[in-house]
Amino acid sequence: MRILLDVMGGDNPPEELVKGGVLMAHRSGAQIVFAGDPDTLRTALAAQGEKPGDRFEILPTSQVVGMSEAPVTAVRGKKDSSLVRGLQALRDRQVDAFVSPGNTGAIVAGSIFVLGRLEGIPRPGLLAALPTVTGQDLYVVDVGANSDSTPDHLLHFGLMGAAYARDVAGIPDPKIGLLNIGSEPGKGNRLIGNAYALLEESPLPFVGNVEAHHVLDERPVDVVVCDGFIGNVFLKSVEGGVAALARLFKRTIRGRVVAMLGALLMSGSIAQVRGTMSYQRRGGAPLLGVDGVVVIAHGRSDALAIGSALDVARSQVEAGLLDRFSHGVSGWRSHAD
Amino acid sequence: MRILLDVMGGDNPPEELVKGGVLMAHRSGAQIVFAGDPDTLRTALAAQGEKPGDRFEILPTSQVVGMSEAPVTAVRGKKDSSLVRGLQALRDRQVDAFVSPGNTGAIVAGSIFVLGRLEGIPRPGLLAALPTVTGQDLYVVDVGANSDSTPDHLLHFGLMGAAYARDVAGIPDPKIGLLNIGSEPGKGNRLIGNAYALLEESPLPFVGNVEAHHVLDERPVDVVVCDGFIGNVFLKSVEGGVAALARLFKRTIRGRVVAMLGALLMSGSIAQVRGTMSYQRRGGAPLLGVDGVVVIAHGRSDALAIGSALDVARSQVEAGLLDRFSHGVSGWRSHAD
Repeated sequence: MRILLDVMGGDNPPEELVKGGVLMAHRSGAQIVFAGDPDTLRTALAAQGEKPGDRFEILPTSQVVGMSEAPVTAVRGKKDSSLVRGLQALRDRQVDAFVSPGNTGAIVAGSIFVLGRLEGIPRPGLLAALPTVTGQDLYVVDVGANSDSTPDHLLHFGLMGAAYARDVAGIPDPKIGLLNIGSEPGKGNRLIGNAYALLEESPLPFVGNVEAHHVLDERPVDVVVCDGFIGNVFLKSVEGGVAALARLFKRTIRGRVVAMLGALLMSGSIAQVRGTMSYQRRGGAPLLGVDGVVVIAHGRSDALAIGSALDVARSQVEAGLLDRFSHGVSGWRSHAD
Repeated sequence: MRILLDVMGGDNPPEELVKGGVLMAHRSGAQIVFAGDPDTLRTALAAQGEKPGDRFEILPTSQVVGMSEAPVTAVRGKKDSSLVRGLQALRDRQVDAFVSPGNTGAIVAGSIFVLGRLEGIPRPGLLAALPTVTGQDLYVVDVGANSDSTPDHLLHFGLMGAAYARDVAGIPDPKIGLLNIGSEPGKGNRLIGNAYALLEESPLPFVGNVEAHHVLDERPVDVVVCDGFIGNVFLKSVEGGVAALARLFKRTIRGRVVAMLGALLMSGSIAQVRGTMSYQRRGGAPLLGVDGVVVIAHGRSDALAIGSALDVARSQVEAGLLDRFSHGVSGWRSHAD
């Protein structure tokens, strides 16, 4: 398996991302094609005791799409960027998957332009795997590939999320919930009301509305469907709430000897919880619905996080997920064929 | 000051809510009018060593609007409910404010029917005060009075939130941010893009977009404006994230003697943080933009939480907030007159 890694678009330097690629390649046996500035890449590989060859290749590019560039303009204007050239390599089947910690909007726009949408899928959706109290991840789609969705888009996010849960995460009978502000049918806004009706009529394993304060605790469903704007607010709100709580604790115990001793005794547990919640362990977010395996890693990804994003891409290639969408919503079956 | 308390609509029994009303009355000097079943109310007052009189009055009603009833049907059909009769008492100026832990949608619908909207305010907005790491609350509006908003609605949520921050919370120059999925102008969906333009053109103290993972930590603004669906998801996501983290900790330390000892040593700090985050201390959410002071308390409110919701109503009456909206967006001035 060959995975392309765009090393130019993230917040961390290419050296850190190359390190993650090298570690993952040795762990998994995958080949990595690094897209970026060739001199930087050779130096970074050398720092890991490696050089270009069968296992590690370099796709030389001269341009970089920045984090705050306007997506469409950047993708259209920067033909020799690691982002565009990397996606072209995927389109031409020179690699099996594309992974980048770059500008999310630009990766979505580039994927649609270069790879195209899968037949029958109206819009791609970005899937996030969130840790829950139960120990099992929760799959949320869309978390920001789109900012304005229609009910039909949400229906297909449900299809793609359920197929991912079944074929990549190995959940034989995944259940789908619709993120809403109340649990009863009829709650919410027009978009959600219409999406509810479509999901209910479909053969997808839809169980009803779910609310944001329940899903991480009780995990009543495997897949949460939402509009990309709302899904993105959901992710960032959870992150913000958790960070605020942690910060409040630090501030509260400061200078209190007994409490600080308590925190010291708990440090193993704190580290374990932090590990469970860590985005580094869950790597990247698959962009589902385009014609190729694309995984968007967190912009702040370090070597560990990039390795885990590459693992996400590998699992998706191994599962042959793209073929699973081709029957459309009407072809849904709960067990993989 | 006379405040009406609807004791029939919450998850807790009237006895618990009456207790909260009695405690608040003694603390503040306010008179409380309890709306509900008269026999239950007399018994509940007696249990607190009180009886109907000057300080505590009973508004006898025979019907109850349940938590999951369809709002408009309930308000139209149950003319003798504590909710409808209580709002009528406010409309007729027999009381200065209305407080209820009941069905949010029914209170919103009832307030619009019975009290009407304030002139110049297209839709009411529900305001929540959230604790932040800085120790100062953050005011978020709308958190669920509406499920489908227009840019003009959001503009007026900004006006009402800023007026509340200035005149009730005492922040002389409140700053307004728009909840979005990126900080740059031009991010987000159509609704948010159009609301951004209206806020920017207005004389309101609008500073730009804010993101959900920053607002509780850095508190870059005093007021966050959002669509009610998104604001409600935001609140519940923060709540869910915090609860999930707390649950994970409990689960992680279980059976680990050293870690459990650590938690014991930290228990004072844990209680303090829990107090800071507690909804009980911040009471109710004011429904802004209707012609009367209406405060919606959490459905699970106990005596302490109801007391704090009554305090929220009292502060708003004392500030004379309703008159502050009458100049509309164009009449905004940062300092109170």
